[in-house]
Amino acid sequence: MKLDLLGSGPQRNSTGTRGETVPTVPSAEKTAADTVDVTSLLEQGRTLATPVLRAAVDRLAPPMDTVAAYHFGWIDAEGNPSDGDGGKAVRPALALLSAEAAGAPPEVGVPGAVAVELVHNFSLLHDDLMDGDEQRRHRDTVWKVHGPAQAILVGDALFALGNEILLELGTVEAGRATRRLITATRALIDGQAQDISYEHRDRVTVEECLEMEGKKTGALLACAVSIGAVLGGADDHTADTLEKYGYHLGLAFQAVDDLLGIWGDPEATGKQTWSDLRQRKKSLPVVAALAAGGPASERLGELLTADSKSSDFENFSEDEFAARAALIEEAGGREWTAKEARRQHAIAIEALDHVQMPDRIRAQLVALADFVVVRER
Amino acid sequence: MKLDLLGSGPQRNSTGTRGETVPTVPSAEKTAADTVDVTSLLEQGRTLATPVLRAAVDRLAPPMDTVAAYHFGWIDAEGNPSDGDGGKAVRPALALLSAEAAGAPPEVGVPGAVAVELVHNFSLLHDDLMDGDEQRRHRDTVWKVHGPAQAILVGDALFALGNEILLELGTVEAGRATRRLITATRALIDGQAQDISYEHRDRVTVEECLEMEGKKTGALLACAVSIGAVLGGADDHTADTLEKYGYHLGLAFQAVDDLLGIWGDPEATGKQTWSDLRQRKKSLPVVAALAAGGPASERLGELLTADSKSSDFENFSEDEFAARAALIEEAGGREWTAKEARRQHAIAIEALDHVQMPDRIRAQLVALADFVVVRER
Repeated sequence: MKLDLLGSGPQRNSTGTRGETVPTVPSAEKTAADTVDVTSLLEQGRTLATPVLRAAVDRLAPPMDTVAAYHFGWIDAEGNPSDGDGGKAVRPALALLSAEAAGAPPEVGVPGAVAVELVHNFSLLHDDLMDGDEQRRHRDTVWKVHGPAQAILVGDALFALGNEILLELGTVEAGRATRRLITATRALIDGQAQDISYEHRDRVTVEECLEMEGKKTGALLACAVSIGAVLGGADDHTADTLEKYGYHLGLAFQAVDDLLGIWGDPEATGKQTWSDLRQRKKSLPVVAALAAGGPASERLGELLTADSKSSDFENFSEDEFAARAALIEEAGGREWTAKEARRQHAIAIEALDHVQMPDRIRAQLVALADFVVVRER
Repeated sequence: MKLDLLGSGPQRNSTGTRGETVPTVPSAEKTAADTVDVTSLLEQGRTLATPVLRAAVDRLAPPMDTVAAYHFGWIDAEGNPSDGDGGKAVRPALALLSAEAAGAPPEVGVPGAVAVELVHNFSLLHDDLMDGDEQRRHRDTVWKVHGPAQAILVGDALFALGNEILLELGTVEAGRATRRLITATRALIDGQAQDISYEHRDRVTVEECLEMEGKKTGALLACAVSIGAVLGGADDHTADTLEKYGYHLGLAFQAVDDLLGIWGDPEATGKQTWSDLRQRKKSLPVVAALAAGGPASERLGELLTADSKSSDFENFSEDEFAARAALIEEAGGREWTAKEARRQHAIAIEALDHVQMPDRIRAQLVALADFVVVRER
């Protein structure tokens, strides 16, 4: 699926294409952003951060180093080298741009990029175990391969390592950066607690869903965008404003993830068809469709309630999931979520107007925001 | 069981009672230590730290606050107030004395005491789940009552909170204190990784056992004894020397725990008779007995190897465990461990000679060390 939330082709630079409820972004910036090579930008983040990340993971005592290397996709389950899918690497790229936004060279952001990646992966290890998820990025999850104890232990180790990487810099800025990282980590944990509690509920409001997604996805992206700047000596106002960009970028990112979780192409996402529906996930399109009212919304509500009691759910056919997806779309859940992605994207970009930074960096941050909402995986 | 490792009565202050291999402590200090009321000292630590600890735990979002309150024994499984056994509170007392050792008032050590308690309890929550332990301090463990996901999640939250409590002080000293806490946490995690790996091995050397116990018990006690001083502005030499005292105190503490784990009075310890033998724990007395050589040692090795393959182990009688305990004692494992506790106790106290501190504080640290090795639970 090509989401194409921003429009494409010649309309791309027009401020008029997003519909009246979406704040528009000055076209001059959009033009500059169009010249940014996002692939190179992500690649640069990977190139600078990955060696430091690998060196950090190498500090872990056996067998934790091996388990972590498996999780990051550097080795396979048998211990042979592998170049697995390391993810999109949006966070490292943001952390380096964050340093540059504060006038520092990108290298200053590297410990921040690595710390954020370590904490992100700590949460993946623990969440996969808590949620019983057996697959991530086309591979068995750590608890499936190495057992629950290793998933807990290595998650703990990555969390500690993330803080260690920053604190051993020994500077006042590193202390401030670590504090922001811990705040984001606490939000991650709170978000996971909410997510777990929602599983046991029939209904979740759109506001509750957005709050949970803000904690699970927004908070750490926000930290990625402030951490380099803080390490580069930025003041709290600058860091807070950059975090605003990152937080709303995270919400836009998650809204797109929620669309891909239902209508994404399995080839691109690496997930099953109708993945989030199979997992009964109360994601934004579902929650928005249930809140919309009207015949399709009501029919959807009845079906999902029946599904939650059905002993046959595991054996549902493609058609049965397709029928639910069609109802979500008919009730407006798909369009609402796409619009929400555009709305959060616009708030993110607007925040950048309140920070002094080089035009080149601003254009790159805008381009990354665009990338996040038009991606296919 | 009264361990009485230091001797008692009039002999107590004599430097000659510990046997020739044990370094002795100047008797003037021992006399001062004898006048210290350890019960009041532990009580003061509890009184100053507990309200701050409870306020910190109250910051957790529901249901994590409730799960944590259950773990700390403040409420029962139904949510009713309870004044459960909060443990011996040695760490908080040490953190406050640590501040005073650096010439600061005890209150300066409070955030350190709370941070250390939070990290200690994070490790208990995760270790109990990883080890499948169903009881702690006479109560069902968190994963038994609230499920594995909550044990993981609340453990994570306590870990994050420990760092947060320190970093929000916003001082250079707090950054240094947090770094020490993270170093100790990494050691805790490494120790647990070793402990898990030893379960799958037939033999563990005495050195491996001491290394593991140093990480699981020594590192965080060391941090408790330096953290208050660091918050009070102590230099790294002072902090490192205090950590040496704490590390060896931790090893003495653990050696005593290992004795109590086999020969402790169930009424006092809250554990089953022969608790560590029932859990097939490779604790110091066992490892030392197996390393000693001679008929009893060999017979013990044969029995334990057979036990590890026995399908009937769960149904072993008191007499069968008593027979194994007798062999450990006959092979010298009990005496070796008692001597090791005295040796570590002496190294700990000797370290105090290399730090400038008020005599009153030194006497209190010596008294706490004495308490640790003569306790019955």
